[in-house]
Amino acid sequence: MAISKNTIKYLRSLSLKKYRQKYNNFVVEGDKMARELLASAPERLIALYALESWLKNTGPFPEGKAFAVSEQELAKISSLNTPNQAVAVASIQETSIDAQILQNGLSLYLDGIQDPGNFGTIMRIADWFGIAYVICAPSCVDPYNPKAIQASMGAFLRVKVVEQNLESVCRLGPGLPVYGAAMDGANVFSAPISGVGVIVIGNEGNGISAAAERWLTNRIAIPAAAGGGAESLNAAVAAGILCAVFRNKL
Amino acid sequence: MAISKNTIKYLRSLSLKKYRQKYNNFVVEGDKMARELLASAPERLIALYALESWLKNTGPFPEGKAFAVSEQELAKISSLNTPNQAVAVASIQETSIDAQILQNGLSLYLDGIQDPGNFGTIMRIADWFGIAYVICAPSCVDPYNPKAIQASMGAFLRVKVVEQNLESVCRLGPGLPVYGAAMDGANVFSAPISGVGVIVIGNEGNGISAAAERWLTNRIAIPAAAGGGAESLNAAVAAGILCAVFRNKL
Repeated sequence: MAISKNTIKYLRSLSLKKYRQKYNNFVVEGDKMARELLASAPERLIALYALESWLKNTGPFPEGKAFAVSEQELAKISSLNTPNQAVAVASIQETSIDAQILQNGLSLYLDGIQDPGNFGTIMRIADWFGIAYVICAPSCVDPYNPKAIQASMGAFLRVKVVEQNLESVCRLGPGLPVYGAAMDGANVFSAPISGVGVIVIGNEGNGISAAAERWLTNRIAIPAAAGGGAESLNAAVAAGILCAVFRNKL
Repeated sequence: MAISKNTIKYLRSLSLKKYRQKYNNFVVEGDKMARELLASAPERLIALYALESWLKNTGPFPEGKAFAVSEQELAKISSLNTPNQAVAVASIQETSIDAQILQNGLSLYLDGIQDPGNFGTIMRIADWFGIAYVICAPSCVDPYNPKAIQASMGAFLRVKVVEQNLESVCRLGPGLPVYGAAMDGANVFSAPISGVGVIVIGNEGNGISAAAERWLTNRIAIPAAAGGGAESLNAAVAAGILCAVFRNKL
């Protein structure tokens, strides 16, 4: 079938947060990610546009949701430099924080992560380490940004993401330790940490905001080498190191 | 002054490895990175093209090396989406491995890192943790790729980078432990590691190559959570976690 102009317009509109929110839909692109969506969350599939060859090798699909497109059509609806066989539309699922899960697990609070690649990489870290919640400050990039989805490598299908400010998180989990990376913090390798709580990851350029800083109960640091010259670590790398160390304490 | 067509052509050619190697030059862009170059390695500056306002606030400069350009000219020579005041050309410095430094420090061997963003992020990690050498397999992205330089946040000025295969590294440091991340490896948090040696970081898609695998003396793993769903961690994140844990053992 030929894909209609309206469909192309709708699919392209999903590159913008405004339209993702309006339709409650987002785009999942490429062979591997589309397969993962079909395998782990078929109920979230709204529609799938893919090359005929891909559809033949991948189906069966939920009735009336899979459509063959030509290479030219795929190029029109893809946001990738090199379109990769399939473009799927999935529904955004709202999650809220369960206080008991919060209080017994390890969560990340992203205090304004701006780069979608960093955001997706942190989602992948959260997936690897079984993080309970990735909680986004309102100043974060949209979790359903196409580049964030691509970088997450399917983690968005498994990791629970919520948008909420740190104050309301702390009210849900009174007494919960809230860790923040700070230059003057205690060495995370020797600090008394339990593996349960919330780790706050600051913005790429500005670190942890004053609004979040107020809620920290513990200041921790990833020690640099004495001769090291870098001013800071990349936010996703710092998140990965902290999650690894905390997980090892459990 | 107006910048000549030939200069524009030359500066643009440096986005390609072929021309970086031909001229032994590479590009360093943006306010902060250009300042860092001037502060820490002024002898490596070949030429600097910057807005008049920036030159006024930043100088003095080595005689005859700084040139004012207009916004339009800057846009023509910049490889950034948003040009940031200054474009500098610096000389590539060849380094070789000193066997004694290799044998007494911690180095990274990048076994085919392809993404320039990952490469630059790993350089930043190496800078933070005082890594002795970042050794690149010939299959790696060029260390002087503009995106790698941008992501390194100035680390390229401090971290020693060499291109060499793992076999020749091992011959320089006989008996040196060579660690590789592998699914079936020992938990890096409890494995007997000394903080000295070479950590091999595999390619983003394919992991460690068979050619490098032969030289591993220790297989280590970053344990995932039991309930975790991710297949792997991003290569730069894995490098960051391993460097942090090894540094803590010193």
